[in-house]
Amino acid sequence: MSNYRPPVSDLAFVLEHVVGYPDVARLPGFEHADLATVVELLEQCGDFMANVVAPTNQPGDVEGARRQPDGSVTTPASFKPAYRQYVDAGWGSVPFPEEFDGGGFPWSVGLAIQEMLASSNMAFALCPLLTQGAIDALLHHGDQAQKLRYLPKMISGEWTGTMNLTEPQAGSDVGALTTRAVPRADGTYAITGQKIYITYGEHDMADQIVHLVLARTPNAPAGTKGISCFIVPKFLVNDDGSLGEHNGVNCLSIEHKLGIHGAPTCVLSYEDATGYLIGEENLGMRIMFVMMNSARLSVGTQGLAIGERAYQQALDFAQERRQGLAIGATGVNSAIIDHPDVRRMLLTQKAYLAALRRLMLFNAVHMDRSTHDPDETGRARANEIVGLLTPICKSFGTDLGVELTSLALQVYGGMGYIEETGASQHYRDVRITPIYEGTNGIQAADLVGRKLGIRDGASVTEFLSTMREVEAELADAGDEFDSIRLELGRQFDTLETATQWMLRTGRADPNAVLSGSTPYLRMWGLCTGGWLLARSALAARGIDDAELAETQLVLARFYAEQLLPQSGGLFGAATAGSRDLFALDAAALSDSARLRQNAPLN
Amino acid sequence: MSNYRPPVSDLAFVLEHVVGYPDVARLPGFEHADLATVVELLEQCGDFMANVVAPTNQPGDVEGARRQPDGSVTTPASFKPAYRQYVDAGWGSVPFPEEFDGGGFPWSVGLAIQEMLASSNMAFALCPLLTQGAIDALLHHGDQAQKLRYLPKMISGEWTGTMNLTEPQAGSDVGALTTRAVPRADGTYAITGQKIYITYGEHDMADQIVHLVLARTPNAPAGTKGISCFIVPKFLVNDDGSLGEHNGVNCLSIEHKLGIHGAPTCVLSYEDATGYLIGEENLGMRIMFVMMNSARLSVGTQGLAIGERAYQQALDFAQERRQGLAIGATGVNSAIIDHPDVRRMLLTQKAYLAALRRLMLFNAVHMDRSTHDPDETGRARANEIVGLLTPICKSFGTDLGVELTSLALQVYGGMGYIEETGASQHYRDVRITPIYEGTNGIQAADLVGRKLGIRDGASVTEFLSTMREVEAELADAGDEFDSIRLELGRQFDTLETATQWMLRTGRADPNAVLSGSTPYLRMWGLCTGGWLLARSALAARGIDDAELAETQLVLARFYAEQLLPQSGGLFGAATAGSRDLFALDAAALSDSARLRQNAPLN
Repeated sequence: MSNYRPPVSDLAFVLEHVVGYPDVARLPGFEHADLATVVELLEQCGDFMANVVAPTNQPGDVEGARRQPDGSVTTPASFKPAYRQYVDAGWGSVPFPEEFDGGGFPWSVGLAIQEMLASSNMAFALCPLLTQGAIDALLHHGDQAQKLRYLPKMISGEWTGTMNLTEPQAGSDVGALTTRAVPRADGTYAITGQKIYITYGEHDMADQIVHLVLARTPNAPAGTKGISCFIVPKFLVNDDGSLGEHNGVNCLSIEHKLGIHGAPTCVLSYEDATGYLIGEENLGMRIMFVMMNSARLSVGTQGLAIGERAYQQALDFAQERRQGLAIGATGVNSAIIDHPDVRRMLLTQKAYLAALRRLMLFNAVHMDRSTHDPDETGRARANEIVGLLTPICKSFGTDLGVELTSLALQVYGGMGYIEETGASQHYRDVRITPIYEGTNGIQAADLVGRKLGIRDGASVTEFLSTMREVEAELADAGDEFDSIRLELGRQFDTLETATQWMLRTGRADPNAVLSGSTPYLRMWGLCTGGWLLARSALAARGIDDAELAETQLVLARFYAEQLLPQSGGLFGAATAGSRDLFALDAAALSDSARLRQNAPLN
Repeated sequence: MSNYRPPVSDLAFVLEHVVGYPDVARLPGFEHADLATVVELLEQCGDFMANVVAPTNQPGDVEGARRQPDGSVTTPASFKPAYRQYVDAGWGSVPFPEEFDGGGFPWSVGLAIQEMLASSNMAFALCPLLTQGAIDALLHHGDQAQKLRYLPKMISGEWTGTMNLTEPQAGSDVGALTTRAVPRADGTYAITGQKIYITYGEHDMADQIVHLVLARTPNAPAGTKGISCFIVPKFLVNDDGSLGEHNGVNCLSIEHKLGIHGAPTCVLSYEDATGYLIGEENLGMRIMFVMMNSARLSVGTQGLAIGERAYQQALDFAQERRQGLAIGATGVNSAIIDHPDVRRMLLTQKAYLAALRRLMLFNAVHMDRSTHDPDETGRARANEIVGLLTPICKSFGTDLGVELTSLALQVYGGMGYIEETGASQHYRDVRITPIYEGTNGIQAADLVGRKLGIRDGASVTEFLSTMREVEAELADAGDEFDSIRLELGRQFDTLETATQWMLRTGRADPNAVLSGSTPYLRMWGLCTGGWLLARSALAARGIDDAELAETQLVLARFYAEQLLPQSGGLFGAATAGSRDLFALDAAALSDSARLRQNAPLN
């Protein structure tokens, strides 16, 4: 299997020239995170990921996580030492406050690190990712004693964290959960219930696991309004910070999954476990929402990350594998990269991956602005943009992750279907990403149901106007940008029309906008990707690097001419309304019903 | 896991009303295969598949095929008894000549059986499928003695067959194979070499395996022109038909694959094995081409078949699983089928599967005409249509197989990612289909490189004209067919324009047409699917079955308005030429090269 090559040069280019990172580095609190420092950090991080984490990916898939008879869970043999080095190097602490021993770097830098970590080993990366979510929740809603007790060790990575939402009857419908939290006289709560799909709910990589658990207190309101969030540490923590007795939480089983075999997905049983309330009762969903944007952006980035790793391997294979004679070639046979259709597969991957990286970092930069811009209006606007782009990043990134790993597998031909080459592992691993952290259908509903209506549609309309500013810049940039400008203009027109339809229809007929939500979200993904690639091509002109300028121009043009037009092809589905979706009942959707009633000979 | 429900009612409707099966039943030799007989046969076959084969699917995946230390291969425990019943029932013999104890039914009937078999258990279905290919080759090119010796037992299924093409250095490039065939004094050949990816190359379901092996005789011309085809039975056959000594063929190992775990994929070693030449030396590729159309159509049908099984399970799940409250619903929660985006996923699967079934059977009916039409012109035209549609059936069917099993998995949410629910098995199993029997890239090259040019483009142009006849019929059919007519007309226009571009460009710039071949093929798949669904909607009006008419109308309209427009979105990619695909060299395609040379801080 090929080595992982961290895309640090593209990350550096995008941060500096495409998404405006230098402005972030000037925000109060980020003075130490200037571009040069960040690029050096990413270089070092890339080396670490490539050398320490990436080699654990395939062996970890083969070995898998295992639950032992005593209820403990063993991760693949390579994970524990790699995690130890990860903690020692401090990579998990980079974007967290210095107050709790974090690096104090912007979130956009943390996201660039996450991309490389997930490319190196997604199953491994999930442990720090879940920890990060728990840290976020405590940072925003924990009290100072809780922060001091848990955050330094979670930020360092010595302790890991989990998120406990799902129960068998409560998946997308979080409000249906039934885990109980009964107040005790000492101010703690007794937590009892069963949680499923708990990533790294039990493992052997750290001494302590800090579970954040959603549960209902007695007499809490029904649905999402009656959910509270609790800290339930695997081991109770003594006043001196040392670990005490085992809390009432146990791993009943782990799931047998399509992929991410190295990551244990646990069924956890809570029996009279000691829990510590975060914030107040019934604030659970609000606490979850705090971390939702960053967690969803991280999952979108996983789609990019696994797509990138799969692409690199396919690119290497396409240069080594020789089959047939390309048009105009002589000799015995050609590397398959010389066959046009293989080129199409590779360039499609490359262009989409470039678009995704720009989109994720653009969003992350606005997260940084939403928290650190000294101007309140600036923070509010950045927050709106994050809200708008997050469902797009999550869904478009993960849907493309699936499609691009499939293309990478296809480049391998028959060898792609053999597990040993590693192509199929990426295809299996990435398939969870359109599902978890809110299915992509939930993301689409969030886009049309929550985000479009902000300021009566003014928020999204303003963003579309911002995107369209690129057309004038492309017009000034010379003939070779003409086709990009024309295609972007055409597709922006269509996206605007669809958006107007959504805004017009939304209140009167929510089912109609939900019916078109997924194709509409894809239009957004395609258009924002084309927009950011066009910005990349424009920016690259200004740098004294002809090769870079040519690469960015080709990617932007290929995308605009050959991928972006699919956006227009989705307009019909986005705006068709709900009639035909609901025209057939379940019997008509299933042939068997007809067969038994109407088969010609019965 | 849900039971499989054979779609016999849809098969019967399509055969009778959409693809013109009654005309096939009137062809000489098919008199006994009237529609009523065929539908009854399919009913019985469906019952068999649902009751005997379908239950072996998931256990077979879990258990997998295993190679024993002695080189024998054990299939999953349920396979052998199910195969015995399959042979006893005679399902494999249906479409083969009565002369060799076959049923003498049209190929279109055989394909309908294949769909149900592959839906029931694709890994299992591969054994009869490979046997069928070997039968085809012997039927067309074997001498009478070979036919009498092998065909009756292969047609009954007592003996199974394999196709031995691939070698490590010879995949898509079959001409690169090096297995040697040295003539012996007795007229047999000594076969020596190694073959890989041999499906059911060794197994325990039958007493005998008849390998068809491609090899080179001494001094044969280079490339595909110097390949001969040999019968190499696992056991030599005595003159009385009994089995003799073990031939020099052994299974060295079996592959660890992403899916179809129940089907052993073997590395076979031939050492001085006795082979019997089929036809003449150097005719190997011609013999392969004989069975290519039917094999490729069968693989396209696998995409449909697995998609159908996955869809049925997702549909069942969507009615059982309750999450959240649908718009306008009251009570605690709704079945997820009431959520618009879940409906979109289900109807997308349903409409594409209906389109694929029509396309596969339309092609199969023309295969029957190409062999049995008493009129030579009719046979020739049918053969052209088969040639044109086969790469479309293979690629569109298998690409959709991947996409639709992914949608089915998505309907399950988190449970789709857990192997126990079975959704992920379909997703894994189907992923081989875009690869084997000619990768989908090879199919696209076949379409633009071989099929478009037939009669200087007149063949394809005539077929487009035939398709466009539906527009006038839709215009006569009433207002509710208007949107279907408009969308079909628009997309046919675009397909015609792309076809003219292909025909114009082909000779001067073969790289340009190859560069656009895959999106162009997809346009064909989308348009032929929409065409056949429109024909279904028109035909269903004439039947006294309001429910059927409504279902067909909704499927045709949903497809035309919401899926078909994606065809137009591919026009840019189909006709962009090769410039941008070849604009970046391997270094530019890989960031690492840039990083090491141009990293800002190095």
